Amino acid sequence: MTKPILIHGGHLFTMQGSGVGYIEDGAVVVTGSEIAAVGPETDMRLQFPNHQALDATGCAVLPGLIDAHMHTPLAILRGVAQDVAHWMQKALAPYSRHLSRDAALAGVKLNVLEALRAGTTTFGDYTNPIPGWAETYADAGVRAVLTPTINALPPGGMAGWLLGDLYPLDKETGDQAIDKAVRFGRDWHGAADGRIQVMLGPQGADMVLREHLLEIKRIAEREGWMIHMHVAQGDREMEQLQMRYGHRTPELLADIGLLDAQLLAVHLTEASDVEAARIARSGAHMVLCSGSIGIIDGVVPPAQAFREAGGLVALGSDQASGNNCNNIFNEMKLTALFNKIRYRDPTRMPAWEVLRMATVEGAQALGLGDRVGRLAPGMQADLILVDLGQPNLSPVLASPVRNIVPNLVYAASGHEVRTVMVAGRILVDDGEALTLNADAVMQEAQVQARELAVRVAKDPDHRQMALLDAMRAGQL
Amino acid sequence: MTKPILIHGGHLFTMQGSGVGYIEDGAVVVTGSEIAAVGPETDMRLQFPNHQALDATGCAVLPGLIDAHMHTPLAILRGVAQDVAHWMQKALAPYSRHLSRDAALAGVKLNVLEALRAGTTTFGDYTNPIPGWAETYADAGVRAVLTPTINALPPGGMAGWLLGDLYPLDKETGDQAIDKAVRFGRDWHGAADGRIQVMLGPQGADMVLREHLLEIKRIAEREGWMIHMHVAQGDREMEQLQMRYGHRTPELLADIGLLDAQLLAVHLTEASDVEAARIARSGAHMVLCSGSIGIIDGVVPPAQAFREAGGLVALGSDQASGNNCNNIFNEMKLTALFNKIRYRDPTRMPAWEVLRMATVEGAQALGLGDRVGRLAPGMQADLILVDLGQPNLSPVLASPVRNIVPNLVYAASGHEVRTVMVAGRILVDDGEALTLNADAVMQEAQVQARELAVRVAKDPDHRQMALLDAMRAGQL
Repeated sequence: MTKPILIHGGHLFTMQGSGVGYIEDGAVVVTGSEIAAVGPETDMRLQFPNHQALDATGCAVLPGLIDAHMHTPLAILRGVAQDVAHWMQKALAPYSRHLSRDAALAGVKLNVLEALRAGTTTFGDYTNPIPGWAETYADAGVRAVLTPTINALPPGGMAGWLLGDLYPLDKETGDQAIDKAVRFGRDWHGAADGRIQVMLGPQGADMVLREHLLEIKRIAEREGWMIHMHVAQGDREMEQLQMRYGHRTPELLADIGLLDAQLLAVHLTEASDVEAARIARSGAHMVLCSGSIGIIDGVVPPAQAFREAGGLVALGSDQASGNNCNNIFNEMKLTALFNKIRYRDPTRMPAWEVLRMATVEGAQALGLGDRVGRLAPGMQADLILVDLGQPNLSPVLASPVRNIVPNLVYAASGHEVRTVMVAGRILVDDGEALTLNADAVMQEAQVQARELAVRVAKDPDHRQMALLDAMRAGQL
Repeated sequence: MTKPILIHGGHLFTMQGSGVGYIEDGAVVVTGSEIAAVGPETDMRLQFPNHQALDATGCAVLPGLIDAHMHTPLAILRGVAQDVAHWMQKALAPYSRHLSRDAALAGVKLNVLEALRAGTTTFGDYTNPIPGWAETYADAGVRAVLTPTINALPPGGMAGWLLGDLYPLDKETGDQAIDKAVRFGRDWHGAADGRIQVMLGPQGADMVLREHLLEIKRIAEREGWMIHMHVAQGDREMEQLQMRYGHRTPELLADIGLLDAQLLAVHLTEASDVEAARIARSGAHMVLCSGSIGIIDGVVPPAQAFREAGGLVALGSDQASGNNCNNIFNEMKLTALFNKIRYRDPTRMPAWEVLRMATVEGAQALGLGDRVGRLAPGMQADLILVDLGQPNLSPVLASPVRNIVPNLVYAASGHEVRTVMVAGRILVDDGEALTLNADAVMQEAQVQARELAVRVAKDPDHRQMALLDAMRAGQL
């Protein structure tokens, strides 16, 4: 049997209790995939005299970061859809319709590499399953909550629809997507030593029929899977639901029994504070994607109201075609800043609160609160070491005010992450990924992206892209 | 004579013209401290057959970044003053009053190291001059615009004043500060082969008497120095001016003849769009400190209105006690995002516009537009190479939409800067600073910060600090 690992010398933020759970001169002991003990280093050394030491001197030691909502294939389209109105139609769609399976898988791997190196240990990925998707997570050694997209959009997708028309939805297509998701869930839920979980993912209340939502809820209850769903994600969605049912999204979900603790509601871009509070009080959880919704919509979603109503909010990086990066340090900072601005109040969303959203509360929102998000005995050993010996995180002060948490939130960028451990296994060492070949992943992404760009350029529809004007004007 | 340096193989953003001035397969030739030529690589190789090659393959090549407003000594207080109301009084002051000269100088060096490694080549530093301040810039090899603080606050500073009272201002103190600034300017303006410039820095229209402002303006005209001044930086300032003169700041400055192209107006936090436009139309320039004002005040200053009125806006990182980091990549991103949110419009402040603020327009705002901010023959050779071969900047696409500028603004964090050149001299190579000893700088900062924290803890006044509550509650 391998010796326990004693992680010592670091600044320990356990995220236990109601704050950040700092332990002075603390150490963490890992045996196998679990945390065996956490406490003063001297005690740990007495309890575990026969150990392997992992020196964290000069580092902050934290639970691994939780990214609750991503669309990883879109990493291959990083940076092609910024600064435009009607992002999806005018910038993303001309690219995404040419996304091959190989390109999508290259995007998944690129995104896992990027986020893992920036300290993400749990990946809430939402996409159309492609061969190799779940396997990438199994092989990379990270933790994942995978949600296959379910929609009832008839073959051909949204092409030819006009804004303002009621979308045609197809019962058969939705049924098939549900069946496929259920098969995926049976294959993968609990796989990779329990590192992989599955959720059911209706793309939005406007993208499936009411009967699909009811069927998904029945399956969720039967299988014990959560429902991961975009909710109130745009005025388009609200308009569709008004036309179809005469309700806004929260009202519809309440009506048909989807508002409860099994729901992970993503975005709430268009939800009012009152609607957000209603969803929170139902026990449902929220994912806040600050960077993505800021860039795509110029909106700060009502996470503050959701939290004030007692709800749990996780953070998500969404997708690199909109947000450009998938990095929870980025999301923590933007979340704190955007909410200060929304309320013109510098005390809103202090650093410790957003750090909790990225760790313990994010884990709870995903139904993983008893496994990850805190450093405590019996929890899975998912943790990161952040090197504070960088100019942008120096100096380190312990008293009268400890400056580490504010600096992690407002000054760190993720490149300071030195070590990443998931389930007791070191996946990043000295900043280098051990389970992914970084050069090969980036090279494959480059090849796939170039080929994709050639397909886009050959498609006459690409001439409607908003950013072609910027190209012509020499702005890109 | 040393051979010209040919920088080839990179993606060249010259910032010439009205956009980003991209040159495909371009190269830059540097002779001595200047750019000798910019153009297609094949042409450059013909014109300069006898050269040293600097391979920029896989990199973006840009003008060095301009940070127009910093208070570098405060880097020593990074992260001790976040998430509080009355930031200056309730969080910063208990620390800043114990800032020794040694601590301040350690802060300057830490800040120069941090920003230089993140691609800043021109430092607009504003502070009380201490021995070693200007020398740090001369020795580091960077470009600096130094502004010694001028105020008329009587000895003892703000201690004992009540919010709402008219501050006592002292003619003699202000006169002495002006004399000292003029002596500093005569010593340093144009020093270090012209890399150092000096500006006159009244701390604010509320911090000096009207006669001081008039005297400063006379000196500025006589010496040809600009005036670098906090303008409309808080409700406190506006209130003081209303009490003293019956005017808000822009009105007062217009009245006494300070609104013209010689003025660099910092923050405009409390200025209305109309006031911002008025200042812009006068020919004065603005510095926007998005991160700092976002964290400290929860405000997005009226830079958009300033630009729409024809004004030039530079970016500034302000200080690490409020903003936590001094990094122009951070400021570009926050500026683009905050303005999208302010106007609920994703097309506001596109990536190329904020990149112009950080380079060509920032240089123009500082009066350095004929020396830096663009890659063009005759300009100083201040430039950076950003490694695009990082997961968060991959893949690189050239057409139909070039994704590099959006990724530099929305996905880069500054750690991707590989090479920094100022006046033809390489100051950062492969991410390592050559003119500053990073370990020694961080070590000295750590020592000075710890000693400072001990002095703070001994001062009974520190018990009024807002963050002590957060410490007790386990939130830090």
